[in-house]
Amino acid sequence: MSQTMARHDAKPLPTVSDRHVDPHSYPDGVAFLDGQYLPMSQAKVSVLDWGFLHSDATYDTVHVWNGRFFRLDLHLDRFFGGLEKLRMTIPFDREGVIEILHNCVALSGHRSAYVEMLCTRGASPTFSRDPRQAVNRFMAFAVPFGSVANAEQLQRGLHVAISDKVRIPPASIDPAIKNYHWLDLVRGLYDAYDRGAETAVILDFNGNVAEGPGFNVFCVKDSKLSTPAIGVLPGITRRTVLDLCAEQGLAAVATDVSVAALREADEVFITSTAGGIMPVTEIDGDRIANGKVGPITSRLMALYWQKHDDPAWSSPVQYP
Amino acid sequence: MSQTMARHDAKPLPTVSDRHVDPHSYPDGVAFLDGQYLPMSQAKVSVLDWGFLHSDATYDTVHVWNGRFFRLDLHLDRFFGGLEKLRMTIPFDREGVIEILHNCVALSGHRSAYVEMLCTRGASPTFSRDPRQAVNRFMAFAVPFGSVANAEQLQRGLHVAISDKVRIPPASIDPAIKNYHWLDLVRGLYDAYDRGAETAVILDFNGNVAEGPGFNVFCVKDSKLSTPAIGVLPGITRRTVLDLCAEQGLAAVATDVSVAALREADEVFITSTAGGIMPVTEIDGDRIANGKVGPITSRLMALYWQKHDDPAWSSPVQYP
Repeated sequence: MSQTMARHDAKPLPTVSDRHVDPHSYPDGVAFLDGQYLPMSQAKVSVLDWGFLHSDATYDTVHVWNGRFFRLDLHLDRFFGGLEKLRMTIPFDREGVIEILHNCVALSGHRSAYVEMLCTRGASPTFSRDPRQAVNRFMAFAVPFGSVANAEQLQRGLHVAISDKVRIPPASIDPAIKNYHWLDLVRGLYDAYDRGAETAVILDFNGNVAEGPGFNVFCVKDSKLSTPAIGVLPGITRRTVLDLCAEQGLAAVATDVSVAALREADEVFITSTAGGIMPVTEIDGDRIANGKVGPITSRLMALYWQKHDDPAWSSPVQYP
Repeated sequence: MSQTMARHDAKPLPTVSDRHVDPHSYPDGVAFLDGQYLPMSQAKVSVLDWGFLHSDATYDTVHVWNGRFFRLDLHLDRFFGGLEKLRMTIPFDREGVIEILHNCVALSGHRSAYVEMLCTRGASPTFSRDPRQAVNRFMAFAVPFGSVANAEQLQRGLHVAISDKVRIPPASIDPAIKNYHWLDLVRGLYDAYDRGAETAVILDFNGNVAEGPGFNVFCVKDSKLSTPAIGVLPGITRRTVLDLCAEQGLAAVATDVSVAALREADEVFITSTAGGIMPVTEIDGDRIANGKVGPITSRLMALYWQKHDDPAWSSPVQYP
C-alpha cells in the first residue's frame, strides 16, 4: 500500500524522444537554410538562437507578382544596410543572395510570392553570451503572396483605429534596420480589434501618427500627400509612392502628421509590400471625407500595379 | 555552342531536400515541445511563428542551484501575468507547467540549470495575419546554468560602459511582460565592447540609468541602496535584493538613478537570474570608489546564495 502511494507520488519520468513530431501545418513554399532548399515545414530556428531569444535579427521582404520581383534592388540595399549596422556577416554577397531568392521562388513554383531574406545573430559554438562569438545565420523563403487588406477591404477601404501605443522610438531602435520588434504594433492591433476596427495606427513619441502593423501611412489634403517622417520604417512601398508622385507631378512630403490631420484628410491610404497601396475609409468609426476610396488613392493604386510589368521597376524570376 | 551557353545561363535548379541536416551544436539539455521531451537540438521554432517574425512572445527563466528551484512561484506569477496581458492561452495550468519544468530538469540531469518557459503567438492554421486566429505555442527547456559574469569578474567586479542607447520605453512595451525585444540592449553591448568594457548599462527616456542586457542595476551610497524604478524589467533577483534588504534592515528604494549617482556611488552591482548578484567596480574606465567589491555587495551576495538552501525560498527538483 505504502509502495503504491510512493509510486503515485513519484510519477515515472517521461521518455526523451529523438525527433520532434510536428503537428502543425505550413504554407506551400520553399526555404533556404544551411545550404539546403527545404519545404516550409523544415524552416526553423533554434530556441537558443539569439535571433529568437533576443530578436537579434534583421530581414527584408520583397514580393513577386506575375513572375517578376518588384524593386528587388531596393530591398537588397536595405537588407545589407541592416546587416552592417548590426555587425552581422553572411557567407553570400549580393549576387549570391539574389540567386538564392530566385531559387526559392522558382522551386516553389509560385507566380506571386512573398519572399523573405533574414539573418539572425545565431549562437556561439561555445554557448557564450557574447554576441561577437555567435555565428550569424542567413535564411530565405518564398511563400504565397499575402496582403494586409483582403479583396473586400481593398474595394471599400480599411476601417482603422488609432491606438495610444507608442512605436518603439529611434533612440531605442533604428527603424532603418528592418526588425522583428512588433509587440507595440501587436498590442495596438488588439486595441483596434476591441473597438471593431480591422487594423491599427500607432503613434510616435510626440503623439503624431507613426505607422501600423507592417505598413506606412499616407494622407491626402487638397491634392497634397504627406507621410510621417521620423520613427517609421523607410518602407519600399512608401518610397514607391513618393517616386510615383514625383513622376506624376503630385506634391508629397515626409513630415509630422498629426492625428487631427489624419482624421480631417480628404483621403488616407496605407502602404506595404504585403498588399501595395491600400485605401482607408474609416478611422475610429468615423468616415474619412465621404467614406469612399478617393481619386488620388485609386490613381496611385493603378499606377503601382502597372509598374510591376515595367523592366525599370521589376525583374523576371528565373523559372526553369 | 549556343545551347551550352543557354545551359550555362539557365543554371539547373537545386533540389529540395526532405529534411534539414543541422550542422550546429547545442548545449546539453532537455526541452518540452508539442507534448514531447526532446534534446536541445530539436527545440526549434518555425520561422513563420509570430513569436519569431514579430517577437510576439513572452517567457520567464528560473534557475536551479544544487538541485533546487529558486523562487519558482515568483517566476510563474510573472509568466502567467505576461500571458494574460498578451492574451495568450496555453493548455497547461500552473501545476502543469511546474510538472513540465521539473521533468525538463530531471531528464537533463543538471543539478544547476537555467530553465526557461515560453509562449509564442504561434501561427494560424489558415495562415491568416490575424493574431487572434493563431494557436499559441508553449515550450520549456533546461540547459546548464550560465552567468552574466564569469568567475574572475565575480571576484574583481565587472567593467561596465554607459551607452547612450535608450531602453524601449513602457509606452511602447510594458516591461512587466518579460519579452525578447533586445536590439537596444545588444547595440548598447557593442558600444561597451568598443570602449573596452565587458557589459553595458543603457538609459531610460529621461537620461537616467535603466538596465543592461539581462540585468537590473543597483547602487549603494552611504549604506542606502537604490535601483531604477521605471522602464525596467521587474526582475526577480532585483526583488530578492529588496527582500534581503528588508530582512537585514538595509534601506533600499526604487527611484530615479542618475548617471552621476551611479558614477559617484560607494558600490554598484547588477542582478540577474543568470548569475545572481554581481559586483561592478569600473564604469567607463573609472573605478567606483576604491575599485574593490564593496562590503554591502559582498554581504548581499553571500545571503543570496545562502537562501538557495532555505525551503522558504527554494524547492527541490523531483529527480528520479
